[in-house]
Amino acid sequence: MIESAGASDAAESAAVAPGARPRIVITYCTQCRWLLRASWVAQELLTTFTTDLGEIALRPGVGGVFTVELDGELIWDRKRDDGFPDVAPLKRLIRDRIDPERSLGHSDRTH
Amino acid sequence: MIESAGASDAAESAAVAPGARPRIVITYCTQCRWLLRASWVAQELLTTFTTDLGEIALRPGVGGVFTVELDGELIWDRKRDDGFPDVAPLKRLIRDRIDPERSLGHSDRTH
Repeated sequence: MIESAGASDAAESAAVAPGARPRIVITYCTQCRWLLRASWVAQELLTTFTTDLGEIALRPGVGGVFTVELDGELIWDRKRDDGFPDVAPLKRLIRDRIDPERSLGHSDRTH
Repeated sequence: MIESAGASDAAESAAVAPGARPRIVITYCTQCRWLLRASWVAQELLTTFTTDLGEIALRPGVGGVFTVELDGELIWDRKRDDGFPDVAPLKRLIRDRIDPERSLGHSDRTH
């Protein structure tokens, strides 16, 4: 799906109608120096979901915040969920909401 | 300014009212594998401007796109500007718009 969309649109330089696709926001604590962690998570998700996502926003915050929101839904909160997300379960949470039929390969295994 | 804002808000976990602060969008071509480049630029800008920025969005596109927008203004376009931005001039473009009095240290030097 991603490849065919890319091929058909290759002649035009565009953002593939981002408004219609899911938006993820990662809010991280600058005081805790979690930019690198937030950026790593963003790259993992963009590598997996590529143009199926509209965008991922990195949002600087304070006070130990580390949250992941998908179209406004809080799918991970370091304080609520007692720690940082690992990328495989985070990808499953997102996949279940945006494309439940999709296989995530090794990220679908729990071992 | 960043430090004092951080200190005063340290007790609460928050995104520091992102709506009031500038938003940057980096659109990159997935076919060209420019995610790493886009992510690097985002990290450079977030390291420099930290909580003076509301957010930086990474937006997957196609067809050789690489653009940087600041609050809707196209401040860099690989096709228009004949190549990729280096981070020092890009930081100056952003600083001039969001905080003209601010010193960027070595990024203010042209050599």
